[in-house]
Amino acid sequence: MSPGPTSPTGSAAPGGTGAPAVTLDDVRDAARRLSGAAHRTPVLRSRTLDARTGTQTFLKCENFQRAGAFKFRGAYHALSHLTPEELAHGVVAYSSGNHAQAVALAARELGTRAVIVMPADTPRSKRDATAGYGAEIVTYDRYTEDRAAISGRIARERGLTLIPPYDHPHVIAGQGTTALELLEETGPLDALLVPVGGGGLMAGAATAATALTPGIRMIGVEPAAVETPGELTFAINRRLVDSVVLVTDDEIRAAMVFAFERLKIVVEPSGASALAALLAGHLDHPPARTGVIISGGNIGPDRFRELLG
Amino acid sequence: MSPGPTSPTGSAAPGGTGAPAVTLDDVRDAARRLSGAAHRTPVLRSRTLDARTGTQTFLKCENFQRAGAFKFRGAYHALSHLTPEELAHGVVAYSSGNHAQAVALAARELGTRAVIVMPADTPRSKRDATAGYGAEIVTYDRYTEDRAAISGRIARERGLTLIPPYDHPHVIAGQGTTALELLEETGPLDALLVPVGGGGLMAGAATAATALTPGIRMIGVEPAAVETPGELTFAINRRLVDSVVLVTDDEIRAAMVFAFERLKIVVEPSGASALAALLAGHLDHPPARTGVIISGGNIGPDRFRELLG
Repeated sequence: MSPGPTSPTGSAAPGGTGAPAVTLDDVRDAARRLSGAAHRTPVLRSRTLDARTGTQTFLKCENFQRAGAFKFRGAYHALSHLTPEELAHGVVAYSSGNHAQAVALAARELGTRAVIVMPADTPRSKRDATAGYGAEIVTYDRYTEDRAAISGRIARERGLTLIPPYDHPHVIAGQGTTALELLEETGPLDALLVPVGGGGLMAGAATAATALTPGIRMIGVEPAAVETPGELTFAINRRLVDSVVLVTDDEIRAAMVFAFERLKIVVEPSGASALAALLAGHLDHPPARTGVIISGGNIGPDRFRELLG
Repeated sequence: MSPGPTSPTGSAAPGGTGAPAVTLDDVRDAARRLSGAAHRTPVLRSRTLDARTGTQTFLKCENFQRAGAFKFRGAYHALSHLTPEELAHGVVAYSSGNHAQAVALAARELGTRAVIVMPADTPRSKRDATAGYGAEIVTYDRYTEDRAAISGRIARERGLTLIPPYDHPHVIAGQGTTALELLEETGPLDALLVPVGGGGLMAGAATAATALTPGIRMIGVEPAAVETPGELTFAINRRLVDSVVLVTDDEIRAAMVFAFERLKIVVEPSGASALAALLAGHLDHPPARTGVIISGGNIGPDRFRELLG
């Protein structure tokens, strides 16, 4: 049993000068482990989108992923590396959002138990979805309590393995399978737009994409609410990401409406950020062929309505 | 030039006792003509849906079709059979909805012009979408005027070919490519649920599915607002359809919400009817493997919001 974070086996320390912490081979290994567990999500095309943006666009739709977001890839992959003894004890994660559901579902699939540490004011629907996958929910007051401390204490007391949301090589390699699948389907792309968040998706996608298509422009997109990057993800992204584009809330809303009206898909705000950057014209010189990761679709009709006013 | 409806070449008269008006070979021919013009739409799976309904479900998502609905298949296929002389003159169709956009887009793709006869009170968005594909819009008062008569007069006066919305063998064969693609991807299915409407999709899908998978249960689903079936579609459907299930407005709304929340797709009310029948438990004995056609997704965020209250 290993309470606390699983160690990044076989990886250089964050920011170190050794071998990369995550390689294309790690992503390929993750793809093998995810086969049959995660969906191979569709790549959508839209002539309207191509005409409007001046680039052939390929949308990798992780809103169709299990539990509604790319997070399931990283969570399941991380859990798939646990020892039988670790699986017998269970896992713990802190998240109010997609990582919570992803870990809960991955734990159920792998026959182990998950404790999810969530703010007490998490929307009912997200709490129910997480509990619906069989996880135990522990709540905390986000104004007075420290979720990392609470999770660490639970991990120690119960002998659980902490599954971090992004700053872990197995999580990063799992998220990288999005870009691997995309490029397998489309062939070489000139640019790939990826929502940044904590950087796990970006780091994994950049690892796979730059190895498969040297010269590809990796463009990160930051939604309005910016997460703190991880040490490991920051180290990878500093090396592999060409530029980071910022999008406003209005641009994200416009992208969500475009996705609804023209693409017929439901995309959550952070999941729409890369599409928003493209639609809002934030690419200086749109290349011939551009990939865009739609990272998640976990938004209910009521919240969607509120958000679009 | 042939003003008025193009004649159903090589087909038995509606309701006649000769060879079927539309055969699997006609559907295969339509698939060849549609290749590269229509999208091969994705087939979505959902473990949540399987668990809830007790049948492995395969959703053929025509909401991702060009112009937002299966109608593009039939319209494009019908236009692809016109002579160069007919194409030089153009086409006319009457519809306030998906057939209007389908004919407008198909006409643009094939380098001809379309006149679309629409009620004067057609929602702005549908009118704009149709005009956006380059069609000329002619409006009429639906309380005092007869759209068929107006369209016939325009066809005669301008030498245009009328493209009927469903009651035509080329339209039916085009719609049948949905089931052809679905079964090519899934292999044999035990049942196929199809929204009925005017019967073109049902007739085409039943023609293809019963030929490819003898013994498949063809189940039609009627949404609340029932269209008048065509003569030709009625003749085919009477022969090939096992049963017709009725769904209420509430059941359709529930299916639209399920599609939004769990499948992350946008489905218009009539497009959700077959899914509604399955979710509402209208299949007496759910078989092992069931196909469902999601027929369209043309609904804006505002109308979606209104409808769900």
